[in-house]
Amino acid sequence: MSQTAKTRVLTGITTTGTPHLGNYVGAIKPAIEASQDPSVQSFYFLADYHALIKCQDPKRVQESRLEIAATWLALGLDTDNAIFYRQSDLMEVQELSWMLSCVCAKGLMNRAHAYKAAVADNEEAGNQDADKGVTMGLFGYPVLMAADILMFNANKVPVGRDQIQHIEMARDMAGRFNHLYKGQYFTLPEAVVSEKGEVLKGLDGRKMSKSYDNTIPLFSTEKKLQKLVRKIKTNSLEPGEPKDPDTCTLFQIYSAFASDSETAAMREQYAAGIGWGDAKNQVFEYLNAHLAEPRERYTALMEDPAYIESVLQKGALRAREEAAVTMDRLRSAVGLGRFV
Amino acid sequence: MSQTAKTRVLTGITTTGTPHLGNYVGAIKPAIEASQDPSVQSFYFLADYHALIKCQDPKRVQESRLEIAATWLALGLDTDNAIFYRQSDLMEVQELSWMLSCVCAKGLMNRAHAYKAAVADNEEAGNQDADKGVTMGLFGYPVLMAADILMFNANKVPVGRDQIQHIEMARDMAGRFNHLYKGQYFTLPEAVVSEKGEVLKGLDGRKMSKSYDNTIPLFSTEKKLQKLVRKIKTNSLEPGEPKDPDTCTLFQIYSAFASDSETAAMREQYAAGIGWGDAKNQVFEYLNAHLAEPRERYTALMEDPAYIESVLQKGALRAREEAAVTMDRLRSAVGLGRFV
Repeated sequence: MSQTAKTRVLTGITTTGTPHLGNYVGAIKPAIEASQDPSVQSFYFLADYHALIKCQDPKRVQESRLEIAATWLALGLDTDNAIFYRQSDLMEVQELSWMLSCVCAKGLMNRAHAYKAAVADNEEAGNQDADKGVTMGLFGYPVLMAADILMFNANKVPVGRDQIQHIEMARDMAGRFNHLYKGQYFTLPEAVVSEKGEVLKGLDGRKMSKSYDNTIPLFSTEKKLQKLVRKIKTNSLEPGEPKDPDTCTLFQIYSAFASDSETAAMREQYAAGIGWGDAKNQVFEYLNAHLAEPRERYTALMEDPAYIESVLQKGALRAREEAAVTMDRLRSAVGLGRFV
Repeated sequence: MSQTAKTRVLTGITTTGTPHLGNYVGAIKPAIEASQDPSVQSFYFLADYHALIKCQDPKRVQESRLEIAATWLALGLDTDNAIFYRQSDLMEVQELSWMLSCVCAKGLMNRAHAYKAAVADNEEAGNQDADKGVTMGLFGYPVLMAADILMFNANKVPVGRDQIQHIEMARDMAGRFNHLYKGQYFTLPEAVVSEKGEVLKGLDGRKMSKSYDNTIPLFSTEKKLQKLVRKIKTNSLEPGEPKDPDTCTLFQIYSAFASDSETAAMREQYAAGIGWGDAKNQVFEYLNAHLAEPRERYTALMEDPAYIESVLQKGALRAREEAAVTMDRLRSAVGLGRFV
């Protein structure tokens, strides 16, 4: 199978917040496994241009990018097989975004979920200006997202349900550009929605999410991890009483990491009436053993930003090489090529 | 006076259409004279990214850029003193445009003249969709224009009255960015509206404009020029009858090129009852003599696109050198700098 015939998969990585166990199980782990598949050409990028929409604190943007890069590398992202780059190292994506802007109907953006939600909030709050607090970045980011995808002619884009619309918009712009400039410049990307979509529960039993403040950070120190596992909400059944694993947050978190046989064994312990303290200790020990190695790598990486930078530069070089070919073709297509 | 203390003047050049005498007198000539002033640092750019908003014909975009570049060079644009570049050679401007998007209220764009005019047209035509035919490029181009200006911290931007709003918007974004990121990153630009604003009349006596199809192209052949001058509308006064120069299109065109004393002499001929045929011959001879040399240069330049390209590359190098410093500073400001 030749390099060019490989399916191309593109994954954008949000660079805000500190990754927690929920992110890991739901998104990071499957994505990293996919990066190791030599039969696909995958692209992973730190979406730091997008971070500017919501965060005007440069220190937070900067730190978060570093943490996220260190996290993915510590967890085994295969940067030889996959192309791993930082969006802001690929200025070309902004040029492509402009080209797409010129073929993208404003009406399409009027219907974007994020924008409509902002307008609805303003209307609910009784604001005279429906666009209050909406920047051009927020309004137009689906165009940039389309550029992210179309730059590499990605065939597949793994996304959550809330992102399907973005892929449809990218398809729309791709089709419109192909039509207007009379050529097959862009592949129409497909959204790949994870059907498993495992949603991990947090400390309080609700979905683990930063906004609920109920997360267990992926790379907590051992001590912190122990403390947090002990805080996971359980019921008041005594040791010796049989417990229901299927409604139990602790069990769900454990089984998200453990093998099938390990999960089955824990299920038996629940039936046999394991005490909560004992169960929590076992889960902590298991998680800790599982995470100790990547945590160590993570800590070492965080102390070596120069190394992370070098990995990203290597990725940027590969990404820009690809982008250069695409952009040359597109510049000629729209009439912006050089004179000779 | 040090390089950095010089006033910076930025002029964007629209790259659509073929320049005519009206463009020359109203915009090109004063701009070219300004390029020769060593006390200012001026920037001139072919606004070809903007051309994509209105023109999806790559051949036209491409040819127009070449013609316009050849025109300005033929007329004596001083590319040693001024920095003359092609917008699309400065991809950085798109990156800056994104940064500005993230601080620019959508409401600001809602109020842009060009957008409002498009909406008004749709409403008048009874279109259900007020945004019909409006692309994101058309909606958001004032942000790109702000990036054009702020990239070089231009102090002054010569514009027509209809463009004043764009400068105000650029000031708004500059101020907002400075405020949010707590620094004096951008100079607030000033619009310089030409008070002379000489508007040349066209063949039919209305304002010379492509849309009225009444123009005299700047670099017509001698034969074509003669034919067009003969077509300039005059009244039916006979030779020998005194004629009013102040209501006469022919006289206005002549005086836009002639010196004060030459103009005064022509005025006397009008009073003395010069015949229209005679007057037209004199005006043609004068224009032809005036334009012969640049026309020859223009023709030679059009046959040597490689030379034009090399001039633009030289300009791009100077522009990108400046932009690199600015963008490094801005990337750090927003949190997108490198890790080491």
